[in-house]
Amino acid sequence: MWTILAVNVILSIGGSCAILNVVPKFRDMFIKAHLSGVDLNKKNRPEIPEATGVISSCIFLIVMFIFIPFPFSKHFFNKEWGFPHQEFVQFIAALLSICCMVLLGFADDVLNLKWRHKLLLPTVASLPLLMVYYTNFNSTTIIIPKPLRILLGHDMDLSALYYVYMGMLAVFCTNAINIYAGVNGLEVGQSAVIAGSLILFNVIELNGDCWSNHLFSLYFMIPFFFTSLSLYQYNKYPARVFVGDTFCYFSGMTVAVVAILGHFSKTALLFFIPQIANFVFSLPQLFHLLPCPRHRLPRLNEKTGYLDPSVFQFKEKSLSTLGHLVLKIYQLLGLVKVEHAEKDGHLSQSTNCTLINLALKLMGPKHEKTLAAGLIVLQVMCSGLAFIIRYPLASLFYDC
Amino acid sequence: MWTILAVNVILSIGGSCAILNVVPKFRDMFIKAHLSGVDLNKKNRPEIPEATGVISSCIFLIVMFIFIPFPFSKHFFNKEWGFPHQEFVQFIAALLSICCMVLLGFADDVLNLKWRHKLLLPTVASLPLLMVYYTNFNSTTIIIPKPLRILLGHDMDLSALYYVYMGMLAVFCTNAINIYAGVNGLEVGQSAVIAGSLILFNVIELNGDCWSNHLFSLYFMIPFFFTSLSLYQYNKYPARVFVGDTFCYFSGMTVAVVAILGHFSKTALLFFIPQIANFVFSLPQLFHLLPCPRHRLPRLNEKTGYLDPSVFQFKEKSLSTLGHLVLKIYQLLGLVKVEHAEKDGHLSQSTNCTLINLALKLMGPKHEKTLAAGLIVLQVMCSGLAFIIRYPLASLFYDC
Repeated sequence: MWTILAVNVILSIGGSCAILNVVPKFRDMFIKAHLSGVDLNKKNRPEIPEATGVISSCIFLIVMFIFIPFPFSKHFFNKEWGFPHQEFVQFIAALLSICCMVLLGFADDVLNLKWRHKLLLPTVASLPLLMVYYTNFNSTTIIIPKPLRILLGHDMDLSALYYVYMGMLAVFCTNAINIYAGVNGLEVGQSAVIAGSLILFNVIELNGDCWSNHLFSLYFMIPFFFTSLSLYQYNKYPARVFVGDTFCYFSGMTVAVVAILGHFSKTALLFFIPQIANFVFSLPQLFHLLPCPRHRLPRLNEKTGYLDPSVFQFKEKSLSTLGHLVLKIYQLLGLVKVEHAEKDGHLSQSTNCTLINLALKLMGPKHEKTLAAGLIVLQVMCSGLAFIIRYPLASLFYDC
Repeated sequence: MWTILAVNVILSIGGSCAILNVVPKFRDMFIKAHLSGVDLNKKNRPEIPEATGVISSCIFLIVMFIFIPFPFSKHFFNKEWGFPHQEFVQFIAALLSICCMVLLGFADDVLNLKWRHKLLLPTVASLPLLMVYYTNFNSTTIIIPKPLRILLGHDMDLSALYYVYMGMLAVFCTNAINIYAGVNGLEVGQSAVIAGSLILFNVIELNGDCWSNHLFSLYFMIPFFFTSLSLYQYNKYPARVFVGDTFCYFSGMTVAVVAILGHFSKTALLFFIPQIANFVFSLPQLFHLLPCPRHRLPRLNEKTGYLDPSVFQFKEKSLSTLGHLVLKIYQLLGLVKVEHAEKDGHLSQSTNCTLINLALKLMGPKHEKTLAAGLIVLQVMCSGLAFIIRYPLASLFYDC
């Protein structure tokens, strides 16, 4: 086992070096292909290649393709054991779902797909995965947490609903990372922290009963961690490349895949605390209860060089009752700063409902570099919290 | 079996309708994304969306994802039989290789990758396929044709070389279709004819011993045929969309996948007669023995509205001895028309070494529509020839 993990680490480091080497060479190709965006939070507004996540994800796929034979090597030399097709198909199906998602992410970056495609396509891409789950495990029973057992019993078979849950997990992971973005290095940084946390969790669990699931997860998470780390070198402040939807989709799907096939989707979600918070906080804007401008990232104050929270404007009368109520609650909880119009006909405004803007509202204007570092530290702290919930606290809810 | 094939046909027709419906809607998205090219062979030089093969290949993948459960449905209801993971992994690996290839093709269309990527990447994309071949069959023995048996014996184990051959088959199929292009509708038309021929071959062989391999091939070829036919409606003269490298890569890999996993790579190659001829004919230009201009497609004669063969120019002195020899042989065989410079310092010229230019040289200038139709008819005739070689003639070489 350790030899195979060592091979995995070596290949991952190789892939990581390849990314460091290749990304600058592809810069001009991306700009020439009009795959570039303006960095709105810089004074000189530089044009930066977009969607370079496709490079890191392709190199991740190549690393995985080269790696596949190793976990099965003992079966090649010892033909009598029989080949574990069941495990093998998990690998291939996981890579198929990831590859599909990279394709869709890249298509989205190039073509700017519509929202309905963004929800439909990850669902389709997770179909092979669900089918492998069905044929290999088909365990759809969940253990009920202790406090609820009087009501619901010890366990409950969700059957088809469990598949809906897994399909939605893929959709959620891909989109949650995508909407928690807008500051240099945040997409890749948060993904690297999540990957690092999952690696730690998997290594701890290697001593447990389900060690093979966690080994499977490590095979994917180690290359993902290393390739993300390399990409981060170019994406961190001041960003020399943007990673695009491609990276967010790739990243979300890779985590969803190991969570589903490794049977630890609840724990995996624990490492998404900031993303879940950001998603829930954003819901009123995503569902248009409140106006949602195209860009919600913080805006640069040209005078100070610091970032201020961005705002959306609205007419008091145009908001629905529910919209007013949500805004009132957010304001009472101190989540948004609302400035009501002084005169009729003027527009009111509120800070946008994202975690990034909330951080700026609470901590005051910050330099982009400080803000990005702060948000990554927050992600690390949330991972720490996740470990506390998973280990000491979980015994309150489950027998483990 | 027939019910499952019927489901496959119904899904394929559904996918085909989806393409007819979706392609026009995506037109503007492609143009806006600068994914467009100028149709050089039209007087008004219209700007036409490029790389729309990505739409048909994504819809092909969706059709396949939805279809996967059906061939295995009997195993779902009858759990005692045990699930055929071995067959299932073939499906998933085939789709992984195809999906990878679509991703690479699309990346090529968007970013204009270099030649070394175009050779390296299909090889990488075929790795999972080769591994499945290794684990499921690992039969690397070839039967020697009768006339050579005195020298080589009845059969021969190629071992590792057989894998090199299969890897090269994927590279060849993808690139052979890609370089036999340049007239409206030819890429998709030739692919549809190849798919149609393979379907006919598979149906004939359904009565044979290896029926399950041919059934597997049909599951892929039927949706491929129908989706290509729909795309052809938009790509035929006068083209409203270009299909791009995406389609050629997708198409080549899909055929390579079924040829490898269906164990009929030799027969599959028989349906590539025009592509092989074009490839061999092109070799001196591809390997730069003769100069190779960026575009070798025929050129429009604005006066007549007909297409003339395109030419490359060269200085007599700059050609290598081998280059001179090749050109001389081609000229003697009537494959190219060479015009030698009358004075020193002037440039000589020769028609480009492609089957399309050869057709124009032999038949005289043609309208693009007539030329495209002629080349498709040639493809159909070559498929007829392939069937003659495969069935009546094969008995001269093999015991079958």
